[in-house]
Amino acid sequence: MTTKTGLTPSEISAEFSLEQTRRATVTGMENMLYQPIKILDHGFIRVIDYMGDDNAVVQAARVSYGKGTKKISEDRGLIRYLLRHKHTTPFEMCELKLHVKMPFFVARQWLRHRTASVNEYSARYSILAREFYIPEPKHIAKQSTLNRQGRASSFSPEETKSITDLLRSDAEQAYAHYQELLNENETGEVLNEGQDGLSRELARMNLTLNYYTEFYWKIDLHNLMHFIRLRADPHAQYEIRVYAEAMLDILKHWVPHTYQAFMDYHMEACTLSKQALSVVKSKLRGENVTQESTDMSPREWRELESLLE
Amino acid sequence: MTTKTGLTPSEISAEFSLEQTRRATVTGMENMLYQPIKILDHGFIRVIDYMGDDNAVVQAARVSYGKGTKKISEDRGLIRYLLRHKHTTPFEMCELKLHVKMPFFVARQWLRHRTASVNEYSARYSILAREFYIPEPKHIAKQSTLNRQGRASSFSPEETKSITDLLRSDAEQAYAHYQELLNENETGEVLNEGQDGLSRELARMNLTLNYYTEFYWKIDLHNLMHFIRLRADPHAQYEIRVYAEAMLDILKHWVPHTYQAFMDYHMEACTLSKQALSVVKSKLRGENVTQESTDMSPREWRELESLLE
Amino acid sequence: MTTKTGLTPSEISAEFSLEQTRRATVTGMENMLYQPIKILDHGFIRVIDYMGDDNAVVQAARVSYGKGTKKISEDRGLIRYLLRHKHTTPFEMCELKLHVKMPFFVARQWLRHRTASVNEYSARYSILAREFYIPEPKHIAKQSTLNRQGRASSFSPEETKSITDLLRSDAEQAYAHYQELLNENETGEVLNEGQDGLSRELARMNLTLNYYTEFYWKIDLHNLMHFIRLRADPHAQYEIRVYAEAMLDILKHWVPHTYQAFMDYHMEACTLSKQALSVVKSKLRGENVTQESTDMSPREWRELESLLE
Amino acid sequence: MTTKTGLTPSEISAEFSLEQTRRATVTGMENMLYQPIKILDHGFIRVIDYMGDDNAVVQAARVSYGKGTKKISEDRGLIRYLLRHKHTTPFEMCELKLHVKMPFFVARQWLRHRTASVNEYSARYSILAREFYIPEPKHIAKQSTLNRQGRASSFSPEETKSITDLLRSDAEQAYAHYQELLNENETGEVLNEGQDGLSRELARMNLTLNYYTEFYWKIDLHNLMHFIRLRADPHAQYEIRVYAEAMLDILKHWVPHTYQAFMDYHMEACTLSKQALSVVKSKLRGENVTQESTDMSPREWRELESLLE
Repeated sequence: MTTKTGLTPSEISAEFSLEQTRRATVTGMENMLYQPIKILDHGFIRVIDYMGDDNAVVQAARVSYGKGTKKISEDRGLIRYLLRHKHTTPFEMCELKLHVKMPFFVARQWLRHRTASVNEYSARYSILAREFYIPEPKHIAKQSTLNRQGRASSFSPEETKSITDLLRSDAEQAYAHYQELLNENETGEVLNEGQDGLSRELARMNLTLNYYTEFYWKIDLHNLMHFIRLRADPHAQYEIRVYAEAMLDILKHWVPHTYQAFMDYHMEACTLSKQALSVVKSKLRGENVTQESTDMSPREWRELESLLE
Repeated sequence: MTTKTGLTPSEISAEFSLEQTRRATVTGMENMLYQPIKILDHGFIRVIDYMGDDNAVVQAARVSYGKGTKKISEDRGLIRYLLRHKHTTPFEMCELKLHVKMPFFVARQWLRHRTASVNEYSARYSILAREFYIPEPKHIAKQSTLNRQGRASSFSPEETKSITDLLRSDAEQAYAHYQELLNENETGEVLNEGQDGLSRELARMNLTLNYYTEFYWKIDLHNLMHFIRLRADPHAQYEIRVYAEAMLDILKHWVPHTYQAFMDYHMEACTLSKQALSVVKSKLRGENVTQESTDMSPREWRELESLLE
Repeated sequence: MTTKTGLTPSEISAEFSLEQTRRATVTGMENMLYQPIKILDHGFIRVIDYMGDDNAVVQAARVSYGKGTKKISEDRGLIRYLLRHKHTTPFEMCELKLHVKMPFFVARQWLRHRTASVNEYSARYSILAREFYIPEPKHIAKQSTLNRQGRASSFSPEETKSITDLLRSDAEQAYAHYQELLNENETGEVLNEGQDGLSRELARMNLTLNYYTEFYWKIDLHNLMHFIRLRADPHAQYEIRVYAEAMLDILKHWVPHTYQAFMDYHMEACTLSKQALSVVKSKLRGENVTQESTDMSPREWRELESLLE
Repeated sequence: MTTKTGLTPSEISAEFSLEQTRRATVTGMENMLYQPIKILDHGFIRVIDYMGDDNAVVQAARVSYGKGTKKISEDRGLIRYLLRHKHTTPFEMCELKLHVKMPFFVARQWLRHRTASVNEYSARYSILAREFYIPEPKHIAKQSTLNRQGRASSFSPEETKSITDLLRSDAEQAYAHYQELLNENETGEVLNEGQDGLSRELARMNLTLNYYTEFYWKIDLHNLMHFIRLRADPHAQYEIRVYAEAMLDILKHWVPHTYQAFMDYHMEACTLSKQALSVVKSKLRGENVTQESTDMSPREWRELESLLE
């Protein structure tokens, strides 16, 4: 089990050891520490460490405001003010360290975010485990014809099964050949004595993109929210969205005021272009507005209509 | 051919159109523009754009020094001084934009460098081409027993052929099944009318890590040298080293003084630890020094001995 | 005059030399190159170099979309789509290099933006010029009582003059003492033969925060727009806003489609929180909504009312 | 006193409150938390928070190495190996948050480092305290004639006193006029009832560069070491070097193995250029080498000679 969750010996002992600290401490996070939150079939997110809390955001903002802060006296109100007006720097003062495990094709999207620190498992150095992602049947979906990067409806149970079987057999064959190339099995035992294995840095190229990798990932609260905004978006691929949604839940335990403000001012907020704002104002004055009377493209017009229901 | 090299129509016309500019212009780079430099079996590097030259480094450094620069009057000398003393900011004033194509497992190492701008081909959105990397026979090497991330000697021709055949047949099968899942071929034609394809964002997971991806990559000269230092190092994997070496050649044409200083003060330079420096001094005084008489580990001692021959 | 504008000999010759290039070239920028745009009493912005144009944004976006881009065929439309949906990476593919000069207190705000490259004039190394900022009378304004970081109405002409005189005489005295400490004048001549001067790195501390500094500043188009959004905002201090507004004009010449989209989707757009969107929808349905019936604070409610007029 | 050290009420209570945590905890840091380390005449560094310890570096490195780490079993040895071979990413896994106070001219150098998070006291928003830096007599030094950004010998006691008096009287006058412009004193009391004050964002420009500012500053261990390497260097200005040296002491308490490796492989190590390495080898073979027989400039030759004594 420690292998599957990646718990190192020092973490296991940490689970049972309590130290005293004068640092900002959040009970909800202490309870989460080191425990893997399971995601997809073999993935997880584990909180390894955190720095700061809602109050650390407030404290940093108050350094800027100096003695001039008496009026904005309420912490929750200050946090909401900061997020509403995009004063982002105080949110950089909190930091989160996660241990995450996900398929390669998810890791590739994930690591496009450049504002985090990363230490990833190296398949040049070590042998990858026999763990690959097979979507649950309900997530095996047809290509959308409206959105090139989207999914449409499901397949029949028979079609779904045949897709799943194909993905699984290819992944299994890839791993069998990976071992054959390495001349080693998953635990490093030599398969054919007296023969040599292909170098690990080459053999790994035979694996498919649904194999799992894992890394430590450290990011500040501002950049974490940016990541979540993009990856918990309904347009993000399901397989990364589930990780972003798990992070939203971590956020809720860690910095509850920031979480709520983030939902109100970012996740569930919207932007109105100059033209869209003008349309809304006209409508509120009771005027009749059509797409033709504006500078908006038909696509923008539809986006606005769907926003306003 | 334009498809394979990725030349867009606007670039093809750019090849034949010359504009006048008052910006810093480097003849050696103009000749390279848009032309793919072939790397590995299907990869390339193409210079898409550049900003600045050796003189732009000097110019930026002289802003810092103001009127006080008369003494360091020679440009080449100033560039060498800056690189020797790790005054890195003037080298950020030059910028290079490349179009690069490489296997996924190389792209993953590449994109760990966070100080560049990237636009990568999206396999969520579009169908990947049937292009995968198969090492040349001489690069099919055994796992090193000394260095876990290194290669040792070659295999016999028969063994090499069987490895290559295995890699190729797995990659080909992966692509055949990728098309079957998509129900589309490489050019987007439907394979079985009346049937639906799996969404692209899912189907791609069946491809192996030696499939090719491509991206635009823009980086400043300082960070480019950092990338090259790490990736043209003999310990870097051969498949990324060839790209870094091609960049060294681009550097030579683009900023020849910087290139030479970079070779002398970084690529072919070395670092002596406090302890190693002390050993060198002792030896120069004619003293007899052994590993036991120092604080150096046996490994460090061997590293020093091999450095000094 | 070349001293005041900072033109170096190589730039002066560049003004008269034209080279041929196959890189993306923008006529409107070529005409601006090297020419100082005067700002405040002694400041300026000069375009030193640029990379890319509107088409370079499109080109980078199309690498991502691969063959799947036929539909979004129009460049202007694609740029607008990208900015509207916050697909920011293609805008990192253009780069701008400026030479800027501004008072210290403006430089301090400016350099809080961490995503640019900078080479600044060093007052440790060289002697600062006798140039300080004195606001024009119409910009000498009272402290706002509503907004701690804002300005209110003007003073009487007499009060204005006495403020200006005080600022000027303190700055002049600071410079006179700076020279006395250095025992050098502005051009490096020794004032009292046989005496020694205080080190430059110490003497500079006697100057006031309205003295001018200058630097080369290189930034990509995405981060430039972020800078402009914050610094051309009506809440930004006037003395940095004038620089941001000059950059808006540069943008208009450099990347006209991006400029227009940026105005529509960012500069003149607005964000509606979850609660504000809900209020707008209620109003559009003809319902009567008051602040009390929402979760909005009185301050947010006023912000929404003023947005909708 | 709490005002001077910047302790906020929540920090004061933190000094007396102990929480339990399962996070990595370092006793030496717990003892330092919140306590100002005095630097210069009014400056300080206070540790506000920290994340991780030496073991967190090891833990992150071991994620990369996976099961392949048995050999490099000793933590201290692994840390030394990582720093010696410039494997920098595991050091990004520790984070430090400081509250620092220093003169403006020091803050300007400090904030050129772009890889940290910052919240600075805003003189647009609040009134600056009457605190300015006057060097101790022994640090009042003549301009070096060898190094434009260096200091040479001291002045006579009389000269020193006259320099100090001049700096002090200018700073005091600047503050008196600052208050007059604001029509407020340091604690925000109106000076002349019925009169208006100049806006704070303008009045601050009358202060000299030796006035104190303060900020929260959060940085990871890798970037902290980079900062220290540059700013604890003998060529750095004394007034920033004292802060870097205080950070070295914090490092020693926080991550003792990393601290020692950092001293050996960075702070007290040296780089030999290709040419210098070749000279060292020749000398070790007993050959006679002169500057003329190498490609080294006279300056480089002198640098090498002084390195080797």
